[in-house]
Amino acid sequence: MARVLTGIQSSGRPHLGNILGAIVPAIQLAKENQEESYIFIADFHSLTSSKDSELRKQNTLAVAAAWLAFGLDISKTVFYRQSRRPEVAELTWYLNCFTPFPMLANAHSFKDKSERLADVNAGLFTYPVLMAADILLYSADLVPVGKDQMQHLEMTRDIASTFNRIIGEDLLTIPEARISESVKTIPGTDGQKMSKSYNNYIDIFLPEKQLKKVVNTIVTDSTPLEEPKDPDTCNVYKLYSLIASETQTQEMRAKYQGGNYGYGHAKKEFFELILTKYAEERKAFDFYMSNPKEIEEKLAAGEEKARQVGEKLLNQVREKLGFR
Amino acid sequence: MARVLTGIQSSGRPHLGNILGAIVPAIQLAKENQEESYIFIADFHSLTSSKDSELRKQNTLAVAAAWLAFGLDISKTVFYRQSRRPEVAELTWYLNCFTPFPMLANAHSFKDKSERLADVNAGLFTYPVLMAADILLYSADLVPVGKDQMQHLEMTRDIASTFNRIIGEDLLTIPEARISESVKTIPGTDGQKMSKSYNNYIDIFLPEKQLKKVVNTIVTDSTPLEEPKDPDTCNVYKLYSLIASETQTQEMRAKYQGGNYGYGHAKKEFFELILTKYAEERKAFDFYMSNPKEIEEKLAAGEEKARQVGEKLLNQVREKLGFR
Repeated sequence: MARVLTGIQSSGRPHLGNILGAIVPAIQLAKENQEESYIFIADFHSLTSSKDSELRKQNTLAVAAAWLAFGLDISKTVFYRQSRRPEVAELTWYLNCFTPFPMLANAHSFKDKSERLADVNAGLFTYPVLMAADILLYSADLVPVGKDQMQHLEMTRDIASTFNRIIGEDLLTIPEARISESVKTIPGTDGQKMSKSYNNYIDIFLPEKQLKKVVNTIVTDSTPLEEPKDPDTCNVYKLYSLIASETQTQEMRAKYQGGNYGYGHAKKEFFELILTKYAEERKAFDFYMSNPKEIEEKLAAGEEKARQVGEKLLNQVREKLGFR
Repeated sequence: MARVLTGIQSSGRPHLGNILGAIVPAIQLAKENQEESYIFIADFHSLTSSKDSELRKQNTLAVAAAWLAFGLDISKTVFYRQSRRPEVAELTWYLNCFTPFPMLANAHSFKDKSERLADVNAGLFTYPVLMAADILLYSADLVPVGKDQMQHLEMTRDIASTFNRIIGEDLLTIPEARISESVKTIPGTDGQKMSKSYNNYIDIFLPEKQLKKVVNTIVTDSTPLEEPKDPDTCNVYKLYSLIASETQTQEMRAKYQGGNYGYGHAKKEFFELILTKYAEERKAFDFYMSNPKEIEEKLAAGEEKARQVGEKLLNQVREKLGFR
């Protein structure tokens, strides 16, 4: 049975873009496929960019709460925090010694980040090796990646091949990329791709009042209320159609084209649809956030399963390298 | 009570240069001083340069055996293998995120090594961060360093200061360097500094026959047997005087200057002095090497002490960074 491993960022509360683009499809896949699914919250990684410890704790909880609220089945998925499996840090050291320095120095993402960021630290530089350790520690067969992560997965494959060649044994599993064919781009409130860093995201877990405020910031044009409108150029319509049923979408489309239907009306319908469609998830999210012990227990179970698998591989690596 | 931490390389069986330059003075200091002494075998580091696992195991044992044979008192010293305290790898990840990339890229030793070596790996690059973790995990106050390691200790101080400043608390102890004032340069068989990499070293633990062969390779000039010789330019005399008593040295000096005393005679005396002076240490070394369980037990005791100290600090770091 193939093992699929997915790392999820812990840099903030998941927003609608994360939910539609990552959480829902991953949970769906885990349900449908006869595969073993490992999903971890990449909190070690978050230290490369943020030193705010209170925020890290809150974000990690919120990420876990969102995945659980959307129905992640922990009896079928090994769900854990990266930082609770420190074996990955030891494996990272070993892999560092099998990773050519120039390979890291020439990585697109490091070049890009080192030009953009003020804090260019060694963690940012060696991040691809930690990512390799994340994957190789659990002998993952498949790793879902977006285009921007393809180079990092190639590095993982290179590092693992070099390691296997030098120790003379196929100990590390060379992972394959599962490229998400049709990753929908979810537009943000300003029409650009929805992203934490553009501050154009919709946090569906907000209290009603605040959520309404955010929905009202969706940018529209100034076509007067009476005139017919083009749904295909409108952010509200685009967002609505991403979560609405086919019938609901057709109805709103007709209203846009019929005139006497303003963007305010559309926003109201979108806001209300969020509330009804995600009623259960919003409730579950609030429950988890006010009962962090429930999250803790669920993660601890996954962390124990991950420990058993990771330690076995790590012990083999230690032995092969002459540390045992 | 100040805590002194010393890392020792595990890249080979300690030779006479290591013994006179490092082992004997360190053990002497540990006996004399009212200080707490931590001594560890840096086997994680050895992976940056060697991938030979059998050799690593043998070297690690031999290093431990040599220190024990020379009288390291494990009731007064925490003696452990770096690789058995994987907490250091986790701390390395945290510290990586507080280490500016350019600081590592500009390190003398990395520049030097990346020009000389074929295998320039990421372990070599991040080695100073692992060294920082080695020191900071145990809150060492003092670190004996040679001139070539001064920059690395400065980096440790920088990383620790940055960390403390960002978390807003003096959690990490800023270590001081103890610069070995009078590190004797021990000449090798060819007169250059004795070093594994020059292959000019004297392994005093060799069986007699092999040891004699090595002593005979010491390079001398071609002054005929009958003529007086200059002791001060002779490698045999220099080596002899490093381990002989004052009287023995003066006697040999007189023989050199008197003539009718050949380099072969001097080599024989040097060889015999090694056998008598280090008789006990040679025996103890052989005992340990044929009873690796004895070494294992002694190291395990140190590793348990180190664990208690290291885990305490690591837990504080985890908490301060929002991982607990």
